[in-house]
Amino acid sequence: MNPHRSWVESANRAGCDFPLANLPFGVIDPGHIGVAIGDMVLDLYACLGRDWQATALNGLTEAARKLRPKLIEWLGEGTQKRIPERALIPQSQCKMRLPFTIGDYTDFYASIHHATNVGRLFRPDKPLLPNYKHVPIAYHGRASSVIISGTPVKRPAGQLAEGVFGPTERLDYEMELGMFIGAGNPLSVPIPVREAEEHLFGFCLVNDWSARDIQRWEYQPLGPFLSKSFATSISPWVVMREALEPITSKAGNTGTILPYLRGGNGYDITLEVYLNTQLMGRSNTRDLYWTPAQMIAHHTSNGCNLRSGDLLASGTVSGDAPEARGCLLEIRPEGPFLQDGDEVVIRGYAETPGHARIGFGECRGVIA
Amino acid sequence: MNPHRSWVESANRAGCDFPLANLPFGVIDPGHIGVAIGDMVLDLYACLGRDWQATALNGLTEAARKLRPKLIEWLGEGTQKRIPERALIPQSQCKMRLPFTIGDYTDFYASIHHATNVGRLFRPDKPLLPNYKHVPIAYHGRASSVIISGTPVKRPAGQLAEGVFGPTERLDYEMELGMFIGAGNPLSVPIPVREAEEHLFGFCLVNDWSARDIQRWEYQPLGPFLSKSFATSISPWVVMREALEPITSKAGNTGTILPYLRGGNGYDITLEVYLNTQLMGRSNTRDLYWTPAQMIAHHTSNGCNLRSGDLLASGTVSGDAPEARGCLLEIRPEGPFLQDGDEVVIRGYAETPGHARIGFGECRGVIA
Repeated sequence: MNPHRSWVESANRAGCDFPLANLPFGVIDPGHIGVAIGDMVLDLYACLGRDWQATALNGLTEAARKLRPKLIEWLGEGTQKRIPERALIPQSQCKMRLPFTIGDYTDFYASIHHATNVGRLFRPDKPLLPNYKHVPIAYHGRASSVIISGTPVKRPAGQLAEGVFGPTERLDYEMELGMFIGAGNPLSVPIPVREAEEHLFGFCLVNDWSARDIQRWEYQPLGPFLSKSFATSISPWVVMREALEPITSKAGNTGTILPYLRGGNGYDITLEVYLNTQLMGRSNTRDLYWTPAQMIAHHTSNGCNLRSGDLLASGTVSGDAPEARGCLLEIRPEGPFLQDGDEVVIRGYAETPGHARIGFGECRGVIA
Repeated sequence: MNPHRSWVESANRAGCDFPLANLPFGVIDPGHIGVAIGDMVLDLYACLGRDWQATALNGLTEAARKLRPKLIEWLGEGTQKRIPERALIPQSQCKMRLPFTIGDYTDFYASIHHATNVGRLFRPDKPLLPNYKHVPIAYHGRASSVIISGTPVKRPAGQLAEGVFGPTERLDYEMELGMFIGAGNPLSVPIPVREAEEHLFGFCLVNDWSARDIQRWEYQPLGPFLSKSFATSISPWVVMREALEPITSKAGNTGTILPYLRGGNGYDITLEVYLNTQLMGRSNTRDLYWTPAQMIAHHTSNGCNLRSGDLLASGTVSGDAPEARGCLLEIRPEGPFLQDGDEVVIRGYAETPGHARIGFGECRGVIA
């Protein structure tokens, strides 16, 4: 018996996103909690009953953490008898819902390469603003328009420039890492950076669709608003923090930063974005300037309360190399941008040497 | 019998915020819907039963609209027998909750006087940015930290400048009008400006507490974040749109604006802010550059979905006169700002000639 093998055969295939070591949680429509294994979904309601009948994972994050070691045992080779057969459903037959009811959605700007590439368009000599290396920059996003992967995206209309209203001509994707909060914090009680990861339930993929013409005209002085709030797509499976091997935060941001931001781990997650099956960019979250723990500590440093199910996103994840850019604006600032009918797919996976591949599945969207 | 008089005597006193013509809705802790009349609260659960047992008004806005004419009848002079005595409770004995579960909170920047006064601090020659008169500027606020009037506000810590972390030294109030959405719109279906007011359930007072030092250092390029997300206070009573007399939108914004923004009414609501009982500013929402209908039409013009209970705020309401400034930053940019123990009270009322005074009660907060 190999401790890494499952009796669900598809989970043992090379390149599978959901081996026994992953077991991400999600919500099957109309309201059962499920766990992905190979190309199947374990329906926890069918397996364990009413406690897992829910339309969202809010309030179930601790239970999910406690269940994880048992699931690894039950789904491991040689123990199949504990799982009733009807509890395993092909993923292709499951319609997935948003994994959490998202109270607030926050989008960071944690990739220094993205910030540099975008800043260069406005300020060729000094692309990075003076605060960048000190403050984990972020803005409040729109929670109501977060949609599940596969939902078509309607091209938004808006003010494209002074006196011009119409459908955006510069529709873009943004490849991001999403983070879901498990346990929140009370208002006025900051989360110290060393405890921050305990509040991080898991990760997903995010496509923060953006209308660059609307953004350019509207964003001063209060930041992006309608250029983002028409749709944000997320992948359905939440990869638990426990499934990933943290890597020591690199030195990049440790020299100049204030004590309340010192700590936390990075993660070695490769992200890929495809436009109509063509690979457009491949980057890695280890190149982010800020770690998830730093983002959480900063977010709550003023006493702001996070709640279970809140979504934090990294901002576009770009690397230093030209082929590691996470949005079209960085690749070709003058376009072409997304056309009607274009399909954008984001994929993600962690392949740490000596560990199983931990995949994220995909975050997919077609421009309607 | 006078059609404007109530048998609840306190509702007939001159200067009363809650006469028979007002009847704002709120939520009494731990979860009854109530209506303010004079210095009393009509507990709708005690009066009408289970339909009005709820911890928030989401989903009850249409029922509230339908109930309003009946309440005017029942509470009018000569008809008291329909209301059981135990259903009337002194306001002083009611602990109020947030009136809605707020899915998303959006803060506009609709006062051109405020935008001019603040812009002048950064750009003395050209205080208004080029987009101001075309785009109803707004940003996504933080929903989790919206608190009910009376909740103490803890002074937030944060990065005050490069390398400096500590409690804010520039804590400010912002006097704003709040608007609650009744019926929402589906994603990708904009609300036309002419239908926008139908989606507006009612109004409240908002104090969008701000840390000016944190704001100045963090806000570029994505807008305010931690400088606002530590607390936003709102008043407990939602004044229904039906209680207010709309006024024709003034010409200020009708010349240059795009067709999708042409329409909607203004409101003649006086706002006052007091610091430790001293009047600091008195302004009026008729001086806003954008009307509520324009804000809603703009907000949804990209297809963004509003949901029942979403809070839209006007941004600081300032007038042209020095005594009509709605925040300390405009009054004294170099301070002094709020000290620990300071109490800020915002009041609001509409006094249209020939109509009853429609008051908003108050939005109160002490710096802890």
